[in-house]
Amino acid sequence: MPHTGNSFRLGITGAPGVGKSTFIEAFGKYLTDQGKKIAVLTIDPSSQLTKGSILGDKTRMEALSKNPMAFIRPTASGNILGGVSNKTREVILLCEASGYDVIMIETVGVGQSEVAVKNMVDFFLLLMLAGAGDELQGIKKGIMEMTDAIVITKADGDNIIHAAKAQAEYQYALHLYPESTSGWLPKVVTASAYTGKGIDDVWKMIADYQNRTTTSGFLKQNRSAQHVAWLHACFDQLLKSDLQRLKNFQSTLKKMEHDVADQKLSAYAAAQNLLDAYYAAIKNQ
Amino acid sequence: MPHTGNSFRLGITGAPGVGKSTFIEAFGKYLTDQGKKIAVLTIDPSSQLTKGSILGDKTRMEALSKNPMAFIRPTASGNILGGVSNKTREVILLCEASGYDVIMIETVGVGQSEVAVKNMVDFFLLLMLAGAGDELQGIKKGIMEMTDAIVITKADGDNIIHAAKAQAEYQYALHLYPESTSGWLPKVVTASAYTGKGIDDVWKMIADYQNRTTTSGFLKQNRSAQHVAWLHACFDQLLKSDLQRLKNFQSTLKKMEHDVADQKLSAYAAAQNLLDAYYAAIKNQ
Repeated sequence: MPHTGNSFRLGITGAPGVGKSTFIEAFGKYLTDQGKKIAVLTIDPSSQLTKGSILGDKTRMEALSKNPMAFIRPTASGNILGGVSNKTREVILLCEASGYDVIMIETVGVGQSEVAVKNMVDFFLLLMLAGAGDELQGIKKGIMEMTDAIVITKADGDNIIHAAKAQAEYQYALHLYPESTSGWLPKVVTASAYTGKGIDDVWKMIADYQNRTTTSGFLKQNRSAQHVAWLHACFDQLLKSDLQRLKNFQSTLKKMEHDVADQKLSAYAAAQNLLDAYYAAIKNQ
Repeated sequence: MPHTGNSFRLGITGAPGVGKSTFIEAFGKYLTDQGKKIAVLTIDPSSQLTKGSILGDKTRMEALSKNPMAFIRPTASGNILGGVSNKTREVILLCEASGYDVIMIETVGVGQSEVAVKNMVDFFLLLMLAGAGDELQGIKKGIMEMTDAIVITKADGDNIIHAAKAQAEYQYALHLYPESTSGWLPKVVTASAYTGKGIDDVWKMIADYQNRTTTSGFLKQNRSAQHVAWLHACFDQLLKSDLQRLKNFQSTLKKMEHDVADQKLSAYAAAQNLLDAYYAAIKNQ
């Protein structure tokens, strides 16, 4: 614990196809060229039924994975806590203790892990494509509200003009959301991993945020709030896993499940019986 | 309870812009013309920060809302249980006891409420647009796995040929998912709310499913499993809300929150202290 807390924690999200890997490659190279050690943790959202992986392997970021200043690690997500496993937080702390300057936590912007990631980072970055249309924008509403900045990716060649237009539109859209308690107004920037243009602006913006919120005290305050939220999540987990130990409770649970499955009892009434059995089991242990 | 369980419960989802309201208008009219009483419950996903509503008002389904055979009700979603409030289940039971033949539960396909809705319906329908592209398809991966059928909407005019192409593609995509325990192979159909073409096919398909799964016993078996899952969710809720009552636990919670915020203690260690305090509080009550 004493060695942790000195890294900047950056969440990066975006829909499949937006160019997250190539952005992180270019952005990571820029940071390591500046002498910064970086860690990239990718949250691997397993689908509910197949437990399959969307992101796949680390070969997505080929150059970065060979860079001695960079550490890339996919962290599998379980079903618990919004799809982000406990392990992710532990890996963050380990990376901090190991002296990484910037830790990026990457998720696929499908709306499942983003809230969990938002709650463990200092800055939340959303990657968007120009011209992806209002529909996609609608899907991202909840996520857009959480972002500290949007990067319009692939802003190169013929796409520059579309990217500039999208920048203005998203800046306007962000304007409509309630102001963050950090006092930071979310920014929209354009960048190209291909030409490298704008990549430095992304970091300058984030460094500016880091300076401002360190001075104002918000950075520390926000982390404290995140730790408290995490305490609650850990307690929930402990409580649940400890249920397995209570034999009498487990037998009542089996009976209640049976009665509810047979529609002899409503789920709510059965849950109240379960609560009584739970308290009795704790008193008798 | 004795009057419930006789309605068919149909989940309907789809991204914003796919034409859910117009489809439900046309589909609802078709069903009421067949003499069926229908209820439409729309899940209103509130965004995390603003608590704002995406769906808005009931005026979306104007004709249906004036139809005496139809009942339309938006049910607000809380933060709990995947965005679907306890109320939704209660409203389903009320509608069943009131003799509605088909209950539709509509959600916006943003990936948050779909799992919860899937767990309370007999059949899960996904509406898709032709030509919405692979990216949108990627976003829907988790949802596509849960669907019993896909309806390609707006299959009229020049769009008919695109819809037929999308039908073949989605049929192929669904083919790749593991087979459902129901033995039902997910279907893809095309429909137009504008011309009415295909609307009857949607119902014939669903009626076929209803017949098959009633005969095989899967329908009943699936509902039993849903009730058991709901029992667990209710128990979790009761346990949590009952924590407020335990004064000594609450004071330890305040102290632990303080220590964790100040980084004197890791969240996990504090959670274990909390568990001890919780058990002590229950024993002393």
